[in-house]
Amino acid sequence: MVRPVGPFSEVSLSPVSFLERSEFGFRDRPAYVDEERSYTYAEFAGRCRRLSGALIDRGYGSGSVIAVLAPNTNVLLECHFGIPLAGGVLNAINTRLAPLEILYILEHSGARCLIVHEALSELLQPIAAQLAGLDIITAGSDGSEYERVLSQSSPTVKPVVDELDLIALNYTSGTTGRPKGVMYSHRGAFLQSLAMVSQAKLDARTRFLWTLPMFHCNGWTFTWAVTAAGGTHIGLPKVDGDRVWENIRKNGVTHMNCAPTVLSSVVAAAGATAGPAPRPIQVATGGAPPSPALIQQLTGLNMNVTHLYGLTETYGPSVVCEWQPEWDTQTAKDTAVLRARQGISNVVGRPIRVIDLDDRDVPEDGATLGEVVIQGNNVMLGYFNDPEATSAVNANGWFRTGDLGVVHVNGYVELRDRAKDVIISGGENITSIEVEQAIASHPAVLEVAVVSKPDAKWGEVPAAFVTLKPGSEVTDAELMAHVRRTLAGFKVPKTIVFQELPKNGTGKIQKFLLKKQLWSGTGPESSAHQPPSNGTQ
Amino acid sequence: MVRPVGPFSEVSLSPVSFLERSEFGFRDRPAYVDEERSYTYAEFAGRCRRLSGALIDRGYGSGSVIAVLAPNTNVLLECHFGIPLAGGVLNAINTRLAPLEILYILEHSGARCLIVHEALSELLQPIAAQLAGLDIITAGSDGSEYERVLSQSSPTVKPVVDELDLIALNYTSGTTGRPKGVMYSHRGAFLQSLAMVSQAKLDARTRFLWTLPMFHCNGWTFTWAVTAAGGTHIGLPKVDGDRVWENIRKNGVTHMNCAPTVLSSVVAAAGATAGPAPRPIQVATGGAPPSPALIQQLTGLNMNVTHLYGLTETYGPSVVCEWQPEWDTQTAKDTAVLRARQGISNVVGRPIRVIDLDDRDVPEDGATLGEVVIQGNNVMLGYFNDPEATSAVNANGWFRTGDLGVVHVNGYVELRDRAKDVIISGGENITSIEVEQAIASHPAVLEVAVVSKPDAKWGEVPAAFVTLKPGSEVTDAELMAHVRRTLAGFKVPKTIVFQELPKNGTGKIQKFLLKKQLWSGTGPESSAHQPPSNGTQ
Repeated sequence: MVRPVGPFSEVSLSPVSFLERSEFGFRDRPAYVDEERSYTYAEFAGRCRRLSGALIDRGYGSGSVIAVLAPNTNVLLECHFGIPLAGGVLNAINTRLAPLEILYILEHSGARCLIVHEALSELLQPIAAQLAGLDIITAGSDGSEYERVLSQSSPTVKPVVDELDLIALNYTSGTTGRPKGVMYSHRGAFLQSLAMVSQAKLDARTRFLWTLPMFHCNGWTFTWAVTAAGGTHIGLPKVDGDRVWENIRKNGVTHMNCAPTVLSSVVAAAGATAGPAPRPIQVATGGAPPSPALIQQLTGLNMNVTHLYGLTETYGPSVVCEWQPEWDTQTAKDTAVLRARQGISNVVGRPIRVIDLDDRDVPEDGATLGEVVIQGNNVMLGYFNDPEATSAVNANGWFRTGDLGVVHVNGYVELRDRAKDVIISGGENITSIEVEQAIASHPAVLEVAVVSKPDAKWGEVPAAFVTLKPGSEVTDAELMAHVRRTLAGFKVPKTIVFQELPKNGTGKIQKFLLKKQLWSGTGPESSAHQPPSNGTQ
Repeated sequence: MVRPVGPFSEVSLSPVSFLERSEFGFRDRPAYVDEERSYTYAEFAGRCRRLSGALIDRGYGSGSVIAVLAPNTNVLLECHFGIPLAGGVLNAINTRLAPLEILYILEHSGARCLIVHEALSELLQPIAAQLAGLDIITAGSDGSEYERVLSQSSPTVKPVVDELDLIALNYTSGTTGRPKGVMYSHRGAFLQSLAMVSQAKLDARTRFLWTLPMFHCNGWTFTWAVTAAGGTHIGLPKVDGDRVWENIRKNGVTHMNCAPTVLSSVVAAAGATAGPAPRPIQVATGGAPPSPALIQQLTGLNMNVTHLYGLTETYGPSVVCEWQPEWDTQTAKDTAVLRARQGISNVVGRPIRVIDLDDRDVPEDGATLGEVVIQGNNVMLGYFNDPEATSAVNANGWFRTGDLGVVHVNGYVELRDRAKDVIISGGENITSIEVEQAIASHPAVLEVAVVSKPDAKWGEVPAAFVTLKPGSEVTDAELMAHVRRTLAGFKVPKTIVFQELPKNGTGKIQKFLLKKQLWSGTGPESSAHQPPSNGTQ
């Protein structure tokens, strides 16, 4: 048990302390707003404490897992405080999962209670019989059971005794295999939140639009970080470009975190045509480097984009492309290249490393590929009830991300591929990303995914799956010729398939399904050259 | 021993990790500059590691106290990393102390080694005989022993095993009694540094001018915080208004922390007449609330002032007057009143409390006086080798600041007086600050201190010590009449003495010496109505 000593400093690190402070210091300021409701910090904190009291009343002791299935509303935000205030563990479930996936997570986490938003209740209907023993509280409308429970309970909380106790279980979205339950501690969540406060320069003026799902690494810990700063959470139950613009123009948004697809929809939305955002917006993005064209468009819309990198296992962004002041004077083209790199560890982390197969750091040459490994207080405690999976990603105390990258001469890491997505053709490594970038540079291409395909002579060869822009046309031969102009011949895809790309609940392309198309009958898993994938960003 | 568990997160919290990260991510950026030298982060980190190696070579084991006597130069900054990297404890000594006070601290701390800057060597001459057994390393010039030691040592460091180990001993300036050694832990210093990073919005663009002594609460932990952000430290061995302006105009200062007297000298300096600062400067101040006139002057000079409050025992500023966005629309007069309050706890602290004699929180009415008490990870572990003094300031786990204040309806604390400086006259409490403010509002007055004076009828009455502005004149009767216009008759000083005010090494008025003048023979200590003072801001 970790318990600080010293008569005055015996305070466990926990993000619930942020609510205590903001309730005190920002009592009359808006904590949460959406189209239907708004709560001051005093009101919001009262609701969280009553949620805590209700859970304690219902008999959930310390360490009880409470699952939540809700869009980005006050309900899920309140659960980020009310559940840990009761000593419970928050299990925020991805709302885009299928009923059987939800059932798996509920069973694996041992959840005893499920708070479900009315908007998502129907997800539970196919598994209603299996959930018979679960205490389900429906939330959402003013007359919901959740509101009744809150209004009838007393504001009771339990102190955080051990800062290494679990605060949350976040299941990976599982692009391969079963989802794994990533364990977050109070300590880790507190520290990562502080890193986000300083990284995004959050303060009481912050108006944070919830474009990033709160179920995704607890919203990269911004659920707690925005609260720490006394800023305002702006709920957004459904993310689309026009709703984002409505909020930008009506609610004075200052910050938002967006997946690449959300960024694209913001730029493409009709709302963007009415001119740039009325005040500068700090936009953080991850998952894929923002393209120079996108950066330019966002700049024109009064949005400053920062590229971050992390995984569920690292509480979200543990790596940030820190802007070096010397870059100010470089050309937009050069800075786009620099900004596309993943960067360096955030302020609470240890410097990240990129290691070779012998666990040695690769040289800082921008060329030598290795696996990115991360260590620090903002790395998970491990996978819940899965010591084998935890052990499989442990490289002498460093967490194996399963991502391959290089280190540039300035120490900045740049990802090149997922370890499992590297194609080995005739003994040569081909990263799927370099082939994808070559194809994406063709003006007709909207989206592309490159995977390995079995080949009698070379072992593997690259194959591409492509979606074209509406109204555009290109043949596979033309695309192959296009790639040949920039890449070596052995990297040119031998097959190009034009089709929609399968995506998972968080919008990531599911390459394993594409691989299955090509490896059907040959056992696609035999193409794994590296430890198994261990989560998602 | 506090040691986080989990295979990937076994990392102790320590501000030395900030140097590791900035060396990696900001290797070519300037870490330190002054008129004579500049070091990149790579160079600076190398020097710190070689200092660590030298201390290890000299046989100083973990926990060894290494004292340092140096102005605000790279030497003292390097000691903030090099000493803890060797497992040592930094004891940065106030350079304004008298030789015998320095000797007391060296002996009490058990320091085995003293790094002294050449500019201050003569302070040691009167105590040379007593220091015969001490390992003294002289630093400063290129040919100094310190430079020789660094050039000959290898870069060796020890890992931080327990984050609650001591990182620094900071002796209170002792306005009453002997200085006490305030114990800082790695954990507390790390967390307070993060609070300062987010509070001051430090980043890689930060150019921090060292107007605040680094020996003062380790420079309010900005020694570590600026390093965490990858900002640049600008050394300033001697603080005067014109040197500050030279740096502002030449070095692009973005941040500085200033005692009220330094702020006054900056405003009054000839350098200020050349126009406002070329870029906005964030100025933090503490010790006394900035006056509306001063705030206006600073605003005109492109400086934005934030009012902070803390003590040596709280790693510097644990309380901050957080600007509420709603204040933007208020008049300058109203915001000056709001800005003069001390405020709320910083982001890593627990909400501060103001308690009555029965340890109950006073009402939030802006009127009921109580003692300010603080708890949190950024409160000291205790006084070094002085359990009695530690126990004397312990109110059920809350640190007694010895400061009296009120809580306003918005939760913001406002100090009214030091507990020991309250005057009890005929059973009525008079805070010395309210009388001082009434006298200071007279245009002829430069400085004033009000203390209690024995009185046969009332027990105590207020007495004032006043310094006039050059060329101004006013009589004691005129000043008494001036006070009577705003305060009740029993608060009007019965005696007014025109004289220079005695100050200690950090520029604070030593009221106990003034009291001694008035209480001589009557035992001034009998006027203490509260626990003894426990440190200084």
